[in-house]
Amino acid sequence: MGKEKVAIVGSGNWGSAIARLAGMNTKKHPDVFDDSRVAVWVYEEEFEGKKLTEVINSEHENRKYLPGVKLEDNVVAIPDLKEAVKDATALIFVTPHQFLGKALDSLEGNVRKDAKAISLIKGVDVHGDDIHIFADVIEQRLGIPCSALSGANIANEVARDTFSETTIGYRNKEDGELWLKLFQTPNFKVQLIEDVAGVSLCGALKNIVAVAAGFVDGLGYGSNSKAAIMRIGLLEMKHFCQEFFTDVKEESFLQESAGVSDVITSCLAGRNYKVAAAFVGANKSFDQLESEMLNGQKLQGIHTAKDVHNFLNAKNRSRAYPLFDKVYQIAWEGVPVEQLTEGL
Amino acid sequence: MGKEKVAIVGSGNWGSAIARLAGMNTKKHPDVFDDSRVAVWVYEEEFEGKKLTEVINSEHENRKYLPGVKLEDNVVAIPDLKEAVKDATALIFVTPHQFLGKALDSLEGNVRKDAKAISLIKGVDVHGDDIHIFADVIEQRLGIPCSALSGANIANEVARDTFSETTIGYRNKEDGELWLKLFQTPNFKVQLIEDVAGVSLCGALKNIVAVAAGFVDGLGYGSNSKAAIMRIGLLEMKHFCQEFFTDVKEESFLQESAGVSDVITSCLAGRNYKVAAAFVGANKSFDQLESEMLNGQKLQGIHTAKDVHNFLNAKNRSRAYPLFDKVYQIAWEGVPVEQLTEGL
Repeated sequence: MGKEKVAIVGSGNWGSAIARLAGMNTKKHPDVFDDSRVAVWVYEEEFEGKKLTEVINSEHENRKYLPGVKLEDNVVAIPDLKEAVKDATALIFVTPHQFLGKALDSLEGNVRKDAKAISLIKGVDVHGDDIHIFADVIEQRLGIPCSALSGANIANEVARDTFSETTIGYRNKEDGELWLKLFQTPNFKVQLIEDVAGVSLCGALKNIVAVAAGFVDGLGYGSNSKAAIMRIGLLEMKHFCQEFFTDVKEESFLQESAGVSDVITSCLAGRNYKVAAAFVGANKSFDQLESEMLNGQKLQGIHTAKDVHNFLNAKNRSRAYPLFDKVYQIAWEGVPVEQLTEGL
Repeated sequence: MGKEKVAIVGSGNWGSAIARLAGMNTKKHPDVFDDSRVAVWVYEEEFEGKKLTEVINSEHENRKYLPGVKLEDNVVAIPDLKEAVKDATALIFVTPHQFLGKALDSLEGNVRKDAKAISLIKGVDVHGDDIHIFADVIEQRLGIPCSALSGANIANEVARDTFSETTIGYRNKEDGELWLKLFQTPNFKVQLIEDVAGVSLCGALKNIVAVAAGFVDGLGYGSNSKAAIMRIGLLEMKHFCQEFFTDVKEESFLQESAGVSDVITSCLAGRNYKVAAAFVGANKSFDQLESEMLNGQKLQGIHTAKDVHNFLNAKNRSRAYPLFDKVYQIAWEGVPVEQLTEGL
């Protein structure tokens, strides 16, 4: 077998932190990976009067989305998506979920048949009473197997190399072990579990819980309330997955980094948490706060809350998920945030 | 059957918050409880030139340990322990664990045979390779059944009546329901589970995890690391209980307020967490920090870490619990705190 050629689709805050790891680990395992190039598709934009791809390629740093963190010199920013994934055998998807559809439109039929993918995308794909994880969407559209990675991974902290863990859900163990080799470092511990759906859904649903935790802190309720909300959220996540997906493993939620740990870090320091806390009493919309606070990054929790609400509504099951429902009502229907804990 | 007469053994921060709830709920359920008196044993000390019992009884407020929070007028502070529990049928134990032995010495043979107890004490009773929860110690010494209560309950927040949850582990459901009636309010939700050992052990062991979380924040590692340490700690708690106790329920740890939620709140705002964070780089002993920071309250986590270390050492099982062991090593053996995450 030839060496694996890595391409990364997406280059925001998390995508850039992942590109740093992939650049290092391809060099660490030159027997497995083509270490001459980790291609990164970058949505071209202007940054301080230059093209962002040129900034990244000349300074080895994504100065817009991950400033202050150097990337290996084998990490190459490419503005053309098809060009970036050409010849790649290991594709990492790490775009905001709203951009995936368009990316797949241009990739369909243009990736190698023997490639494999991994999704780091947070969110779910909902149409009426039909719901899919993005790993399945990628798998179906491109005809290649897709794993999922999610965990307690605030991007800036992973980039700073403080002790962190993550979880990779795989469909076949060989793929899982390949992805582990590409991402694991002494301070970034990867756990493997045969549960693509569980890992993906944790990554999506925890952002709803993070919004609820932000509301609690915005209201000044204290840490007992926050802990209670996080526990209730974790259980709604688990029940949701067990009700609507088959073969999801309970331990993904309750024991893995993708579950309990990611709920914790997202409710302590994630962007969804921060913006939700700022929402309380601010008299501003989430759109306005997003543009003021996130420097071009996107909010996910309120959109996932809406997708999940639409899905549960179509199934007539909203009432079985009172916390998810309350987050939706507050974020989108003008329900006062003080009603958050009522009826939980 | 006569009405239940309530006595509370202990009157610190948490004991006083509990006395507030018991005072309110005996009045709310006068058919079940004698609402004329909730006796509280107070270890007599001087406060601002007066006896603490007199301050509590004249001002209906424990101005030393829970200032600013009024207690019902049926809550009566009593300096003599035997006098406080005389005639009581519902005994609540909420002393620091180091004071329990002496209290039981004077209570043995002096409580009603038809009484029942509940332990809110955090810690474990270790002698060599023998370990007991305090609910069992109380049950054996006094010959009455003992339940346990533990949860995400920072005392000052419960006293402020923000939304919180707790867990009661019972041996027979009737007792569980009695205790629920005594403690539950619209903003303090009680869950019942038939697992006295699990609930007790959660309350004890989470303080070791809180010390570790304090170290992480003292080191400035960020929230991914903190979430990882909390996850690892939660799993060591679960494994410890499953290895050394029979019939402990997994959900006590992973799904109840006593488990995951209490780990969260204790690692965000508990006293063990705060003192451990201050320990990093302070060049002061835990004893010194305790007396400077806690206004007479006691640290529990480092003592539980030592008890658990002694027990695991006697069983030759320390290595199976690397986080518990590391907390002990750092707190008691001078191991540098920077080594916290090594080998996890």
